[in-house]
Amino acid sequence: MERHHFEEELQALKQRLLNMGALVEERIHQAILALLEHRQDLAEQVVAGDRQVNDLQVEIDDRCLKLLALQQPVGIDLRLITSAMKINADLERMGDQAVNIAETVLRLLTQAPLRSVVDVARMAELAEAMVRDALDAFVRKDSAAARQVLKRDDAVDHLKDSIFRVLLTYMMADPGTIDRALSLILISRNLERIADHATNVAEDVIFLVEARDVRHHREAGGR
Amino acid sequence: MERHHFEEELQALKQRLLNMGALVEERIHQAILALLEHRQDLAEQVVAGDRQVNDLQVEIDDRCLKLLALQQPVGIDLRLITSAMKINADLERMGDQAVNIAETVLRLLTQAPLRSVVDVARMAELAEAMVRDALDAFVRKDSAAARQVLKRDDAVDHLKDSIFRVLLTYMMADPGTIDRALSLILISRNLERIADHATNVAEDVIFLVEARDVRHHREAGGR
Repeated sequence: MERHHFEEELQALKQRLLNMGALVEERIHQAILALLEHRQDLAEQVVAGDRQVNDLQVEIDDRCLKLLALQQPVGIDLRLITSAMKINADLERMGDQAVNIAETVLRLLTQAPLRSVVDVARMAELAEAMVRDALDAFVRKDSAAARQVLKRDDAVDHLKDSIFRVLLTYMMADPGTIDRALSLILISRNLERIADHATNVAEDVIFLVEARDVRHHREAGGR
Repeated sequence: MERHHFEEELQALKQRLLNMGALVEERIHQAILALLEHRQDLAEQVVAGDRQVNDLQVEIDDRCLKLLALQQPVGIDLRLITSAMKINADLERMGDQAVNIAETVLRLLTQAPLRSVVDVARMAELAEAMVRDALDAFVRKDSAAARQVLKRDDAVDHLKDSIFRVLLTYMMADPGTIDRALSLILISRNLERIADHATNVAEDVIFLVEARDVRHHREAGGR
């Protein structure tokens, strides 16, 4: 494979990852919209749409393996392809989390929403923006932008803790809310997982650009 | 790098993954033991021990990248190394789940346990065995054994659903159990995630051996 052709293949790979990211982001958005607007059709669409995410994951992985085998890249090209494989896996798992959210929504659809649904929607917005910005950082090889994503994980965690405390109070005060409160707690955990996957992507970007492993040594704290 | 040296490096890589697996399995075990026996010391040990898992992950990833760059493997050797990178990431996330469990246990330590703790312990046993067997299958390149692991994911999911139903009933019948029941539900979700990671590992083994992607096309159903 010539260098020129290799560059084209890398561009195509990045484009597919962006497509995958956009798809996953849409799934998260639809799952939360289904929760907010009692839309059974949307929730079912998210569950059914998992197939598409999975097919894309297999295709992207295949592209990466072929590039590794045929081009035998080193340095930043090697890191780009191994990062793409990891990011691909993170995106697929975000898709799984969106399906989990949609399944919880389907179980709950007939019941009146609790007020905390607003905070869950806010948490979803934060998580979606993290996914989008982490992928942008990957495509632009921008480690400063990736660091900004890492910092936002704490805000998501705080929101999750605050949602948990409020809903626990609801449940204790009025057992009639238990089922709904529990569902919102589970959905907030799914969103936390999505934000975690977005931080994984951001860490991969920093490693890609700076060839230095920032996982577990974050400037802004974290696990 | 000579072929002989390369084989030695692959052996060393597998050994490190097994070490990582044993470490993670021990963490899960300790976190659940802390729950069963009200052992604050054990729970704290799991939280503090995450550092060791993380360091091992970085070391294994580094080994993989060096092997890819220096040896430029193809075929099964290439798949072995990219699988190792993925399995490594799954193991690290299982470690994170063990930390999450330990943190929940620490929050709950002073309260009397609910009866469902027994089912949670059973679920933990199943998940730990899946992790162990998936890694064994990897080292022995045994795709039949990996398929056995996939089949067991359903048992874990059923146990999770049954725990959920029972605890929901407890909470509704006696709001005094809400905090404890909720914690057990969250822990059962963490264990479900661990079993999911073990199925990821098993799928990687099948792909490694048979060079065919079984993800999302399982014989035994599942996502």
